[in-house]
Amino acid sequence: MKKIAVDAMGGDYAPKAIVEGVNQALATFSDIEIQLYGDESKIRQYLTRTDRVSIVHTDEKINSDDEPAKAIRQKKQSSMVLAARAVKEGRADAILSAGNTGALLAAGLFVVGRIKGIDRPGLLSTLPTIDGNGFDMLDLGANAENSANHLHQYAILGAFYAENVRGITKPRVGLLNNGTEDSKGDPLRKETYALLAADANLNFVGNVEARELLNGVADVIVADGFTGNAVLKTIEGTALSIMGQLKSAIENGGWKAKIGYLFLKDALRSMKKTLDYSDAGGAVLFGLNAPVVKAHGSSDAKSIFNTIQQIRTMLDSQVVQKSVEKFSIKED
Amino acid sequence: MKKIAVDAMGGDYAPKAIVEGVNQALATFSDIEIQLYGDESKIRQYLTRTDRVSIVHTDEKINSDDEPAKAIRQKKQSSMVLAARAVKEGRADAILSAGNTGALLAAGLFVVGRIKGIDRPGLLSTLPTIDGNGFDMLDLGANAENSANHLHQYAILGAFYAENVRGITKPRVGLLNNGTEDSKGDPLRKETYALLAADANLNFVGNVEARELLNGVADVIVADGFTGNAVLKTIEGTALSIMGQLKSAIENGGWKAKIGYLFLKDALRSMKKTLDYSDAGGAVLFGLNAPVVKAHGSSDAKSIFNTIQQIRTMLDSQVVQKSVEKFSIKED
Repeated sequence: MKKIAVDAMGGDYAPKAIVEGVNQALATFSDIEIQLYGDESKIRQYLTRTDRVSIVHTDEKINSDDEPAKAIRQKKQSSMVLAARAVKEGRADAILSAGNTGALLAAGLFVVGRIKGIDRPGLLSTLPTIDGNGFDMLDLGANAENSANHLHQYAILGAFYAENVRGITKPRVGLLNNGTEDSKGDPLRKETYALLAADANLNFVGNVEARELLNGVADVIVADGFTGNAVLKTIEGTALSIMGQLKSAIENGGWKAKIGYLFLKDALRSMKKTLDYSDAGGAVLFGLNAPVVKAHGSSDAKSIFNTIQQIRTMLDSQVVQKSVEKFSIKED
Repeated sequence: MKKIAVDAMGGDYAPKAIVEGVNQALATFSDIEIQLYGDESKIRQYLTRTDRVSIVHTDEKINSDDEPAKAIRQKKQSSMVLAARAVKEGRADAILSAGNTGALLAAGLFVVGRIKGIDRPGLLSTLPTIDGNGFDMLDLGANAENSANHLHQYAILGAFYAENVRGITKPRVGLLNNGTEDSKGDPLRKETYALLAADANLNFVGNVEARELLNGVADVIVADGFTGNAVLKTIEGTALSIMGQLKSAIENGGWKAKIGYLFLKDALRSMKKTLDYSDAGGAVLFGLNAPVVKAHGSSDAKSIFNTIQQIRTMLDSQVVQKSVEKFSIKED
């Protein structure tokens, strides 16, 4: 039985969306057990399942505007910290939260703890590509600064994730850089390039430019946390802006545009679906002793369900244990 | 009379698109004179004007896959190098090319030369925002690495450009960072933040996240060349991918989608127009002794016309001379 600790109080639609996602997941997967952390009476309102689910009541919760490290230190009875402690103490195998990202990163680092040999766990998400296969990118901003050694670890971790969780054989690993030629980039990129090219266990396909990311040129993209964060937010911002433009073009385009929209609706919906990356689950703080997964703040029940499915696959494939073994060998 | 040296041989549609853009510009602006560098017989084929235009013939040209610095050193009779030399020697006031970006950057640095006091000229473009006003961003990749001092210079240069070329009073300057709080970012961002906040001549509005770029939150965005390049290419790649998705959703959506498209066509066109940033001209390598402007490789006649208009405004507003004065005072 896979035990998942769920912070029921984090996210814009908590606890409703969280609990409804949990209901669906319990109905679909018979090999999971859910621990819900949060306000018992509010959780009960939405909980329709009784088997393989328990509630750990607490009044305290971390808010989205709390200062992360401080919140983890001071709100020791918060739903998020209690869920992280359950993982730390072996009462749960993984944690899911849609709450304060910084606080979850801090809880992951300071409560759940790093894999021995991993210097800086990185934030990983599966992002959409035009061909529908997606790619895994890390670090998306767990760190503001990274060394070439960190980036090498991200390449290994990313390849592990793509292989074990997404079932990709010999995942192609690319380095995000400002040009495709071997010699491109700043000293950090040049040093990282040399490390990745020398690692025979990686299927390194070289430098990848940001322009090509959505075209499926690699299964794993390695970036420092600052650039990865900027690129992720640029993809989100540009996609939202264009979809917004499209909407206002339709709204301001008179009757012709409105008729056109009626006919195009299905096509637009299928397009939105390809671009929607909540299907692939949440963002994983990867490099910790257990899956620590952040669902989007605006997650609905379906996103929570997807994220539980993702965690189940991570536990099933033992991707974290395999990483622990890999890095303990490296340490010797 | 403003004298503009034009590399007629650079770009995917050279020399046709270049010369046709020049024809339009000469017909529209009576205060410009154009020097066309390149293959005379090919240029003559398209040139319809005779007044205020001259051709400097050369057989040599720099190709898009030439190694930039080497090309500038070895192809001394290329259209691009001859055009840059004309600026260096005072026979022209500015240079325009749609050719090899790296080579133009090298020609700008080594032939035209830096403004005294500017350490690292930055690549600046006016990018589109949803409200149609746009924003100027630099450095977009002239440099792989930058110091806080470089970024401070970009803030000053960017504000000069926005004020003089785009006519914005007290342009709002933002620092691209991984969060909006003052304390965010790596050491480079923190040091830059302190410099920008302490400069009373700047209208510094603080940190800006990449997600907000297209929403018009600042008139000038300052970034290091590596991140700026990644963000620019992500905007381009995401926009292209989504427009491509939209196209294939229409094509694969059956008759309903096709009818919908017919009705929506005008609305989609107006949307594409808002997103099209060739209207604002080319990318300026800013911080040099004269305007050095790169038009997009795929420029058509209209883009070339727009870029000549942009150069004319740069010369008219004397934005380069004003920058020279500003930094010579700083040096004292």
